[in-house]
Amino acid sequence: MKDYLPLVETALDRYSGDFDLPPLFLRSMRYSLLSGGKRIRACLCLACSELVGGTAEEALPFAAALEMIHAYSLIHDDLPAMDDDDMRRGKPSNHRAFGEGNAILAGDGLLTMAMRLLCDVPGQEEAKRSIFQGALDMAAGQSLDLNVSARDLGSLQRIHDLKTGALFRAACLSGAYRGGCDETTAERIRIFADKLGLLFQMTDDLLDKEKDEAEDKLTYVTLLGVEQTQREIDALRGDIHSILNEFSGEAAAYLTDLTDRIAVRRS
Amino acid sequence: MKDYLPLVETALDRYSGDFDLPPLFLRSMRYSLLSGGKRIRACLCLACSELVGGTAEEALPFAAALEMIHAYSLIHDDLPAMDDDDMRRGKPSNHRAFGEGNAILAGDGLLTMAMRLLCDVPGQEEAKRSIFQGALDMAAGQSLDLNVSARDLGSLQRIHDLKTGALFRAACLSGAYRGGCDETTAERIRIFADKLGLLFQMTDDLLDKEKDEAEDKLTYVTLLGVEQTQREIDALRGDIHSILNEFSGEAAAYLTDLTDRIAVRRS
Repeated sequence: MKDYLPLVETALDRYSGDFDLPPLFLRSMRYSLLSGGKRIRACLCLACSELVGGTAEEALPFAAALEMIHAYSLIHDDLPAMDDDDMRRGKPSNHRAFGEGNAILAGDGLLTMAMRLLCDVPGQEEAKRSIFQGALDMAAGQSLDLNVSARDLGSLQRIHDLKTGALFRAACLSGAYRGGCDETTAERIRIFADKLGLLFQMTDDLLDKEKDEAEDKLTYVTLLGVEQTQREIDALRGDIHSILNEFSGEAAAYLTDLTDRIAVRRS
Repeated sequence: MKDYLPLVETALDRYSGDFDLPPLFLRSMRYSLLSGGKRIRACLCLACSELVGGTAEEALPFAAALEMIHAYSLIHDDLPAMDDDDMRRGKPSNHRAFGEGNAILAGDGLLTMAMRLLCDVPGQEEAKRSIFQGALDMAAGQSLDLNVSARDLGSLQRIHDLKTGALFRAACLSGAYRGGCDETTAERIRIFADKLGLLFQMTDDLLDKEKDEAEDKLTYVTLLGVEQTQREIDALRGDIHSILNEFSGEAAAYLTDLTDRIAVRRS
């Protein structure tokens, strides 16, 4: 089975290290950017490029930009004025390590670095638009999450479609566009991405429930219950398999396996 | 004399209004984006496009992106963890009006909106790179300002070259590249932008001094004194006039007048 992770980690280290920036500023950005994680968004981007006939290598700047955007969003989400989380990926969150002002700037810096990085890729407007529309939607979702008091399924779906789904869409679409897909294929990829994003969110909510962290949160599990959520997950997994069956090759096999791993994940 | 301001205000209102975003999120962004200000960066961008033979209209997305980036930086700079300012442009700062979490997101949203907007402009890699290199340098300058304890002229120059100068450079270079300039002209424009950015910072420091707000700050006035700062301003003004004399037409006259207005500004 393919493994895109080493390619992603090397690219993130190299791209972020190439910028001439004040040491503390760069260190605070790399502290969060290079702190592991599953790199699902980057791997989706690379796999979707290959899925439609492109290469993983040419999609690398897009994959790296996605992880920079994801890392910025985690830093800002963890701030005291937002979710106020002290820990992230097993170590102190950025503002606990560098202070609140530096954490705000580290997030700003990573978002800006993502844009600056993609300026070195000529053309590819559709792939770039996918990424920054995703980043804008993600921030919109965070805003809804912070301000919406409604506790119904419609609100939850809208928030998660923006907060989590948007960057999954950005990852898959930017990779597919970079790989040279046509609009018909892009539409299939968009549906795949939406279903995978929802699958990811639902298993996340199940894990929260098991850790007793979902008590006062608006989640699929608190709204639908464990059994109905599990049924939705199974249905999404079947739908995604059907879409991926339209494609062949190693990337399709990788994405099928990734879907299965997300569906049964324990962390 | 040319007046680019109405063009800029109309464009900012229209571009930002075109995005489909949650009402509170968009309102918090537009609260800061459309709150007036001199729009120096946008006007510089438009004038530099015309200066080298382009049009103001084709540089408008770049001018708007610059003001979005400037507005984001002011929102984040005003946060309690940074400069902790309650007022901005005569009204409550963004976090005083919308709360700290929403202000962080409004800044993130404006920075992302700037990128998303420029994704709709095909090509123009050099103009885009100028803008996002400027945004990255600006954040780097903010980081230095937050963390550097040295109180010497070298530190001050480095901080201001990044914090203020970078976006002046981005404004002038993006406009000039969009207007179709060659590399020799770009180099002249870069020197013009650096001198104008420094002139702007020095008059800013003089104004702070008059308002007695410079007591414990690292500024050109506290380091050089009022008279030496004024001499530097006069010299920069002369240098800028010489550079602009190499150009002709309405844009050159506009930029000469803008330089003079900055040199003697009272606000």
